Amino acid sequence: MNIEINMNELAELVKNKDYRKLKFLLERMNEADVAEFLEELDVKESVLVYRMLPKSTATEVFAFLPVEIQREIINAMTDAELQSIVEDLFVDDAVDMLEELPATVVRRVLENATPETRKVINQFLNYPEDSAGSIMTSEYIALRRTMTVSQSFDYIRAHGQEKETIYVLFVIDEERRLEGVVTVKDLLMHSYEVPIADFMETNIISATTTDDQEEVANAMRKYDLMSLAVVDKENRLVGIITVDDAVDVMQEETTEDIEKMAAILPTEKPYLKTSVFETWKARIPWLMLLMISATFTGLIIDSFESALAACTVLTGFIPMLMDTGGNSGSQASVTVIRGLSLKEIEFPDLLKVIWKEIRVAFFCGVTLALINFVKIWIIDRGLFGRSEITLAVDAVVCLTLLMTIVCAKCIGCTLPMLADKLGFDPAVMASPFITTIVDAVSLLIFFQFARLFLHLV
Amino acid sequence: MNIEINMNELAELVKNKDYRKLKFLLERMNEADVAEFLEELDVKESVLVYRMLPKSTATEVFAFLPVEIQREIINAMTDAELQSIVEDLFVDDAVDMLEELPATVVRRVLENATPETRKVINQFLNYPEDSAGSIMTSEYIALRRTMTVSQSFDYIRAHGQEKETIYVLFVIDEERRLEGVVTVKDLLMHSYEVPIADFMETNIISATTTDDQEEVANAMRKYDLMSLAVVDKENRLVGIITVDDAVDVMQEETTEDIEKMAAILPTEKPYLKTSVFETWKARIPWLMLLMISATFTGLIIDSFESALAACTVLTGFIPMLMDTGGNSGSQASVTVIRGLSLKEIEFPDLLKVIWKEIRVAFFCGVTLALINFVKIWIIDRGLFGRSEITLAVDAVVCLTLLMTIVCAKCIGCTLPMLADKLGFDPAVMASPFITTIVDAVSLLIFFQFARLFLHLV
Repeated sequence: MNIEINMNELAELVKNKDYRKLKFLLERMNEADVAEFLEELDVKESVLVYRMLPKSTATEVFAFLPVEIQREIINAMTDAELQSIVEDLFVDDAVDMLEELPATVVRRVLENATPETRKVINQFLNYPEDSAGSIMTSEYIALRRTMTVSQSFDYIRAHGQEKETIYVLFVIDEERRLEGVVTVKDLLMHSYEVPIADFMETNIISATTTDDQEEVANAMRKYDLMSLAVVDKENRLVGIITVDDAVDVMQEETTEDIEKMAAILPTEKPYLKTSVFETWKARIPWLMLLMISATFTGLIIDSFESALAACTVLTGFIPMLMDTGGNSGSQASVTVIRGLSLKEIEFPDLLKVIWKEIRVAFFCGVTLALINFVKIWIIDRGLFGRSEITLAVDAVVCLTLLMTIVCAKCIGCTLPMLADKLGFDPAVMASPFITTIVDAVSLLIFFQFARLFLHLV
Repeated sequence: MNIEINMNELAELVKNKDYRKLKFLLERMNEADVAEFLEELDVKESVLVYRMLPKSTATEVFAFLPVEIQREIINAMTDAELQSIVEDLFVDDAVDMLEELPATVVRRVLENATPETRKVINQFLNYPEDSAGSIMTSEYIALRRTMTVSQSFDYIRAHGQEKETIYVLFVIDEERRLEGVVTVKDLLMHSYEVPIADFMETNIISATTTDDQEEVANAMRKYDLMSLAVVDKENRLVGIITVDDAVDVMQEETTEDIEKMAAILPTEKPYLKTSVFETWKARIPWLMLLMISATFTGLIIDSFESALAACTVLTGFIPMLMDTGGNSGSQASVTVIRGLSLKEIEFPDLLKVIWKEIRVAFFCGVTLALINFVKIWIIDRGLFGRSEITLAVDAVVCLTLLMTIVCAKCIGCTLPMLADKLGFDPAVMASPFITTIVDAVSLLIFFQFARLFLHLV
């Protein structure tokens, strides 16, 4: 792709104070890249460079910046400059920013907004986090059903400049109730004199302000929507969500899922921006909980201490059994978690999923048990001459392996689905959690078989 | 959201052969939902219901269907019906389908396409899998720089009906070389008589046919693009990629990453559609590899058999140490893998990342070691009166814990970055792989400390 940008060259220009050339290059760059470059600079420099940007792109660059740099830029601005930024920003970007700024800065921003903007921003700030209301914007074009194609184009020409999207147009009645949707494509495919009521889509997919943002993003993906109407409880249009924001939501939610699957509390900031303390805080709770759970596994070993002492060769197989069990369980749980989050699997499929996992587990178990059986017999006993590994020991290990894999896969697929059904996030039921449970299960199976076949007490 | 559809009611209508009501309802449903409903039916029914759809929506529903149902429908079609479908499908959807259909069906489809369509499809089928070429489509609108706004609108009105997007228009010269991009918004914001060369964007972000699809999707997300030009090596426009396809790529690639992180070979089909054998095939290679690796961990235990026999109390701490090490390593590796795939972390950050992980690990380690030290002393020794747990044993366990966590986090963050640098997929370096390595490391540390402090041989 043709998007390589030489950040070093730009940084060099800043260092050498060659502002003329820098300005020339910045004006030709994409706003997202300018923002990325500002992030690489230290705070003072980034404020300095930001002020070099032409007014036409400054606001857009500002919207791309992380909140720490936004704060510094705001602090360095005059009230007049601040006012122009606040009025130019799309409401969703302004709200994103205000949600993270310290209260004193928020106050200064709001004081410099027009009463109208202030009212909208305050209203948007009240929508719950992760709701459709919190990611929507108010810059959309609303038409009336009586307008013709030609009148609609005139209206778009007059009002479209500062709207986030002009391609999907919303048709509302006097009470702002949503009546229909037309696209610019529809307009272009009909003659100028036709009223839009004749061809507007009335079977509209819409969200309410309190809908979960992930659900909204999934619907936009499923239906390939470019933008989506958000209505209040009376079906009055209050905002729209555009596909670029839906894409960001999807990425955020996926990152959150992946973090939870790795036993990390989700953080919103990128890795390199979080402090050591924040990272510690996100990781320590699960580590602690899982560590304490793992001590129960230790108790199982302790309670079979005499059996292990009588047949020490068994201890060496514990890591292999525990790891394979954990891996088998993780495979099932992660597959199911992803399926749940993409809505490919739902709770009523539970029995189907379990039945499938049992069969997969059986085949995986038989494969691995056979390989292991042969390996132990030929390599461990044959090659290394470890005569303490009897046929019975080998059988115990391989039977345990098979049973463990079947149990692990059943646990691995069931727990996420139950969690989902009970309203918990299934992502928590991933590898680390499953591993801890499966460890205990595999040891219990191991020692039961050992007792049975090796007559240990 | 207002998208609840009563699939059971529809299925009931199919069962009762109430086709009039069914047809009425289907005509009012979104195409994506109709496709979802067809998937739930058995094959014969779904072909039957598909044939009830009005011609205007049939092709779009067809594009949403999984390839197995597409095949059945094609087999049930006359050549004339097939021809109409092939010509109506967008090239990217046709190519997606043909890539997975059996050769005999592909031949029949191509025979029923016009020579022109056949040529385009054959060309598109030749692009490598996962390349920009494989996901692009050829239904775009190309303009000439000399056209005015008014002429452009006329052109769109005449040619836009069957294009996938009409909002981003590509300006090309006589040799189809890409010169600029204009949006319908640009057109609407300028007077009818202005030539588009006056305001077209010439600083264009484009991809080449061989670019990786993930890279393209990431760029579209970063720059908030609705569609992107794909050019060949001579900068001639050959296709476009629309945001809905980019979104699908992002989801697919994420699913692939998540599967790899769980030691599963990626499969393209949804969970419930894959056979037991396919699932087995996707899961067994890593299970096998990791099982064999884990036997090395067993060897470590075996080689310390006498030490363990002399101090049996140590064995019970093994699961806790191994699990906590594994979890710590996974946290680091998964965070880094996600950071790499979102381009938040890159190889030059390696030292920064390691230094951060060391500090986080140190604090996590100290926290857990302290908790563990107190817990062992008060609960295990105090409450359960296990006098064999001496202060030295407690110290060995807690020091091992601290050291293991530090090593685990270093390994966890380094391996994915090295894999990425060497051109491997970092996602493979996730929990299961890291756990296997960390298991061995934690045991080696444990036994070294045990030898040192408990004077075992």
